[in-house]
Amino acid sequence: MTESVVAHITRRNLLVGAGAVALGAATSRVQSQDPKPVGWAILGLGNYATRNILPNLKHCKHTKLAAVISGTPDKAKRIAGEYGLPESKIYSYDDMARIKDDPDIEVVYVITPPGTHAGFSIRAAEAGKHVCCEKPMASDSAECRAMIEACRKAGTRLQIGYRCHFEAHNLEAVRLCRSGALGQIRTIRSEHGFTMNTDQSWHSKRALGGIGAISEIGIYAIQAMCYLAGADPVSVWGTRDKLDVPRFKEVEDVNHFNLFFPGGIQGIGSTAYSWNANNFRVLGSRGTLDAEPGTPYSGHRYRLNGQEMTIAPNNQWAEQMDHFSECIRDPSKPLIASGEMGLRDILIMEAILKSADEKRVVNL
Amino acid sequence: MTESVVAHITRRNLLVGAGAVALGAATSRVQSQDPKPVGWAILGLGNYATRNILPNLKHCKHTKLAAVISGTPDKAKRIAGEYGLPESKIYSYDDMARIKDDPDIEVVYVITPPGTHAGFSIRAAEAGKHVCCEKPMASDSAECRAMIEACRKAGTRLQIGYRCHFEAHNLEAVRLCRSGALGQIRTIRSEHGFTMNTDQSWHSKRALGGIGAISEIGIYAIQAMCYLAGADPVSVWGTRDKLDVPRFKEVEDVNHFNLFFPGGIQGIGSTAYSWNANNFRVLGSRGTLDAEPGTPYSGHRYRLNGQEMTIAPNNQWAEQMDHFSECIRDPSKPLIASGEMGLRDILIMEAILKSADEKRVVNL
Repeated sequence: MTESVVAHITRRNLLVGAGAVALGAATSRVQSQDPKPVGWAILGLGNYATRNILPNLKHCKHTKLAAVISGTPDKAKRIAGEYGLPESKIYSYDDMARIKDDPDIEVVYVITPPGTHAGFSIRAAEAGKHVCCEKPMASDSAECRAMIEACRKAGTRLQIGYRCHFEAHNLEAVRLCRSGALGQIRTIRSEHGFTMNTDQSWHSKRALGGIGAISEIGIYAIQAMCYLAGADPVSVWGTRDKLDVPRFKEVEDVNHFNLFFPGGIQGIGSTAYSWNANNFRVLGSRGTLDAEPGTPYSGHRYRLNGQEMTIAPNNQWAEQMDHFSECIRDPSKPLIASGEMGLRDILIMEAILKSADEKRVVNL
Repeated sequence: MTESVVAHITRRNLLVGAGAVALGAATSRVQSQDPKPVGWAILGLGNYATRNILPNLKHCKHTKLAAVISGTPDKAKRIAGEYGLPESKIYSYDDMARIKDDPDIEVVYVITPPGTHAGFSIRAAEAGKHVCCEKPMASDSAECRAMIEACRKAGTRLQIGYRCHFEAHNLEAVRLCRSGALGQIRTIRSEHGFTMNTDQSWHSKRALGGIGAISEIGIYAIQAMCYLAGADPVSVWGTRDKLDVPRFKEVEDVNHFNLFFPGGIQGIGSTAYSWNANNFRVLGSRGTLDAEPGTPYSGHRYRLNGQEMTIAPNNQWAEQMDHFSECIRDPSKPLIASGEMGLRDILIMEAILKSADEKRVVNL
């Protein structure tokens, strides 16, 4: 079975078979055949890695820290020390090809600015490692395809860091949508944005930040619409709008988009580097689900018909990493957030921008 | 000065000159030259008239009940009794031409299903009366133009029942948008819908209900975007989507639309007879204003950057009626919600539907 077929089944399982599949994965882990935890190398030691990934490795059941790969030797040394790694487990970007000789490293988790994802992921695959890559997968669909191909050639697996697929509130939202509790769902709206006020950040550089707000933060809206709708969109409409200022010279600012799903569901999305938002809303004939914030690190607030929902929080990062580790131990286990899903999302963004430029609906 | 010019100035005053103008009107009324309250005939004695209009006439300073005009004699008699009107002040739809000989009636307030607005408004104008007509103004732009022309010929004025222009929370939202407190505004989103589950209601009949959800409830989203943006849209994009069921044979169900305003503001609107919503959100570079519910009869909830706002409620119906009465006593006073504004909104809806059918952006 190719990774692409696996990914297809995964998506179908998650989306049609309901969050129940993923929920099951998240709450009662199957015993893997090889009980040895999978060794992960963390590539890139920025905020997300040091605040969200490294501290949560200790909550994993099937995942352990095996190495760090960094472009900043001092930081790498300090962090290796904090997490009890010997100096031999510190790699630099320049010499990371050496990881192919380190059997303790089975996965490389790429947590660098988006424009560098493809390069690092491909190098990791070429070293024979499985790849977990943060979202957005890459700067364009060609890069995504190259990443998928590199892993295929290496015989390794590829996961995208779509943490919301492993997060209890989002999974409960998916379950609710499938349950019929909202009646017939016609509209899913999501706004995701933050203010990016400098041209000195990597966010404003195409080579590092990728497409822009839509790939950096709007991706949560696209993702939410797809997992809540339980389908992939068949066509899109979009608009683009940016201020004529240096920070938006290379990257997208405001995008609004309609995703047309089979069965009459329409996703209405907005994203920007010019305002703050983090929400989704599912509008059904019998009820409304409001999530605001919908996809944060913590502090989710979900309301069903205006009534606060009580959902036990879980550790989305540990769940995400352990899922991939389990998929490595059991190659028949389908990935929930595959490279193909990452590619799908970048293709959606490219179609949105094309639609905006050509002022027409673009089929996917 | 033609009504059209008056309307133009009015809109500019409200929108560019800030809610301050309307707020001023709402909080400290100017003394009109003729202190005699203006006599209003209420045409149509359905829920809105009996629950929201008639009971609030007693809170007006410049407006008094002069007559009722109804198609249901028993109801008219009962209500006339409740409000102390003699039987001579009860008119039927059939004989309403007689009102031209009743000098106590200066305004006819048309509160019937939308498809009948044009007919009644034109008959009222032909009887020499000023017309206040509920929203939506009519079933199509041709009817709107005929209404404007009838009032022009009769030398009477025409107001549309856009109560939100007179409501304290909405006025405060307009003021906030103009104040700069939200920074640069790029996106205004609004969802307005309710579930209409029967093909037995007038809502499902084109001849009575007009265009459909977009004119009945989506109009609040279009209105809000315009008064919050402080401008009229220059072009629109829209989608339409309806279930193949009897109740949507003649009228619109789900519509999503983008209104493109000058200066880079985009309105993102959704409306439906298939879900419930009543909100708007203004997304600025320095802040977010959330109104949910945004345009209810009462119970407004407004939040600025997540913090609940405290806004003293006012009587939007009394303010709306008194404003028109003042405009009648003082012909130089510009209308806040003119027939031209009602026409504008119907033209926007027609453009949205045209855009949906032709799958292209439509200029206004």
